[in-house]
Amino acid sequence: MVATASGRFLVTYKLRVPANEVHARARALALEQSIEMPLEAVAQPFVREHIVARVEAIRPPTAGDPDGFEVALSLATRTTGLEAGQTLNMLFGNCSLQSEVELVDFEPPPELLQALPGPRFGVHGWRQSLGLQYEHARPLTCTALKPQGLSPPELAELAGTLASAGIDVIKDDHGIADQDYAPFSQRVALVQRAIERAGGEHRRPERALYAPTLSGGPRRLRQQLQVVRGEGVGAVLVCPMLCGVPSLVELVREEAGVPILAHPALAGRVRIAPALLLGRLFRMFGADATIFPNFGGRFSYDRATCRAIAQRAREPLGAMAPILPVPAGGMSIERVDEMVAEFGTDAMLLIGGNLLMGAAAPGDSVFQRAAAFVERVHAAAALRRAATGVTE
Amino acid sequence: MVATASGRFLVTYKLRVPANEVHARARALALEQSIEMPLEAVAQPFVREHIVARVEAIRPPTAGDPDGFEVALSLATRTTGLEAGQTLNMLFGNCSLQSEVELVDFEPPPELLQALPGPRFGVHGWRQSLGLQYEHARPLTCTALKPQGLSPPELAELAGTLASAGIDVIKDDHGIADQDYAPFSQRVALVQRAIERAGGEHRRPERALYAPTLSGGPRRLRQQLQVVRGEGVGAVLVCPMLCGVPSLVELVREEAGVPILAHPALAGRVRIAPALLLGRLFRMFGADATIFPNFGGRFSYDRATCRAIAQRAREPLGAMAPILPVPAGGMSIERVDEMVAEFGTDAMLLIGGNLLMGAAAPGDSVFQRAAAFVERVHAAAALRRAATGVTE
Repeated sequence: MVATASGRFLVTYKLRVPANEVHARARALALEQSIEMPLEAVAQPFVREHIVARVEAIRPPTAGDPDGFEVALSLATRTTGLEAGQTLNMLFGNCSLQSEVELVDFEPPPELLQALPGPRFGVHGWRQSLGLQYEHARPLTCTALKPQGLSPPELAELAGTLASAGIDVIKDDHGIADQDYAPFSQRVALVQRAIERAGGEHRRPERALYAPTLSGGPRRLRQQLQVVRGEGVGAVLVCPMLCGVPSLVELVREEAGVPILAHPALAGRVRIAPALLLGRLFRMFGADATIFPNFGGRFSYDRATCRAIAQRAREPLGAMAPILPVPAGGMSIERVDEMVAEFGTDAMLLIGGNLLMGAAAPGDSVFQRAAAFVERVHAAAALRRAATGVTE
Repeated sequence: MVATASGRFLVTYKLRVPANEVHARARALALEQSIEMPLEAVAQPFVREHIVARVEAIRPPTAGDPDGFEVALSLATRTTGLEAGQTLNMLFGNCSLQSEVELVDFEPPPELLQALPGPRFGVHGWRQSLGLQYEHARPLTCTALKPQGLSPPELAELAGTLASAGIDVIKDDHGIADQDYAPFSQRVALVQRAIERAGGEHRRPERALYAPTLSGGPRRLRQQLQVVRGEGVGAVLVCPMLCGVPSLVELVREEAGVPILAHPALAGRVRIAPALLLGRLFRMFGADATIFPNFGGRFSYDRATCRAIAQRAREPLGAMAPILPVPAGGMSIERVDEMVAEFGTDAMLLIGGNLLMGAAAPGDSVFQRAAAFVERVHAAAALRRAATGVTE
């Protein structure tokens, strides 16, 4: 990694351009992502020295990575305004419009890590909220209430079933927002009560958490957060690219008071490396867990990408707590062992439709499938703890 | 266009898949963008009939468009919750994660067109705000204060020069946010006063409008909007994909009280057709003008895409006013005639760095360049009015 002058941080882009153009295009990118004008027209020494981005390194394509040049720029930290939206703007605002440019990674400067909130709960906070014993470290189980179109009582009944089966985190399908057939306040109240009732009846040692989908603009978000607090709801689901990352940072992170599960809706394939956006940036903006489409599901991230997301979610990052990677997207009970092997116990495994298929098969049920999922996760984690000899 | 059942609206995607897979993939997309689970597991007739999206048509690739199948789905209007973020979610939330899917277009249903705010000012409102005579229809002129890193007095001086030269709309560079070297409240007050002073001194018949960049979460946005109102600022610039479209709809559109200029930062190449996102959706969400990278500049939209954006910005759309297309991105004075020919008089022409180059050349100045830009636009429009014999 190249050293940067004080007050700057490194950003890595991939540039898919011919070799004879790469130096000019890298310089143009440095101007585009800082002053957006020709350098000749800049008279002020302060701007030239402290604001204009610089090309720090250009690495040619390699056999292992033949697909474009890797260009490292140093950006001035002050240009980010130490704010989430403006940071995204400096990283990828204008050059998102240039199809040959991809944002690969960046090294957040200490000032930014201090200014952004990061996760309030993180891995440890999820376990605490659930009342989980640390010595029995295991992945959390998660499923989704679906399909949208169900009425609040129908959703509540389903939630009760899933909570009875021992699922840790029961989230709304991210498509369930605030539609007239299941308005937020009514739905959330009923579902939360169903989950609490199920916990009581089944004497669950651990509490199940409900994570309803927050959506809309600031006024609506605030109303929804009031409902969340009023009903004692244990978590929330938010789509940062839909509601806007500044609203995540400044509103949801500040006012939720419960762990935040981030969903990647609209975040796909924007030519920002998934590990950077879903793993690192969402974490910096306040997410406590990050959902991503696991390899081999109905989406198309490959295994290396999924590993990179999990790494970014949990690696040291200033004073910010690690967060839970949440592999998802067409997962099934049969894949639990493999997912535990892949992502370890500091993860949350999300299986949605596969559990609900229990309603479609004779001699099967949603409860049975959910219980089987839970049991399989607990068993796989126990085996792993025994094999590694540590409680992680 | 295929007719849809009542309560549904058509969405067109491009699917880049082999011919023998397209029917299955289209059906999978319909599930992904509605219930996100296997249809077999859905027992409720209401959900099957009124919520599940349907494949309405599949058009094979043609010679003119060989690149994938065009798939028309009908989505249930109620699933959008008649809210901006959730509408984007239903259109492209999950399938943004599938690299073979592109969102091409959609026909907004009347309920959505009534629920979303649309532009408050539109083409006519910009002219009124500027005090422009309608019988002298011409494109508006726009330029950007840059580079970021200038102090508020430096930005104010530049703004005064540009206003004296007759520029209609003087916007912040979109990278100028709320950084410590030019804090929003201080900068906006000084720039606004400089523009007003210039108008008075030069006895401009028309008022120049300043459009500062709004950025940040709801609290910050609200503070900035207060400054805008308090200082009598005439317009605002906002990046919908950075602040989040629900914040545009619910906060900026409601509270700004002045025309809104939308900037495409982070909006590029998300595999949503630019005409749909920048032309149609931003307009529905409340923008009064929409900036896009014009062809032949330093970005890479082609001419057909730019025309489609302009068309979407101005075509009939429910009761929503037409808005101004704003071709930009490395434009120069030399291209004015061509841009007027291309986009007509209901447009705003944005030239940034090319005017500021006046400071770099001996015997030239920013004032001279800006005045030349203004004069050229007025002349081109006069010629066009004479040629067409109408005042548009």
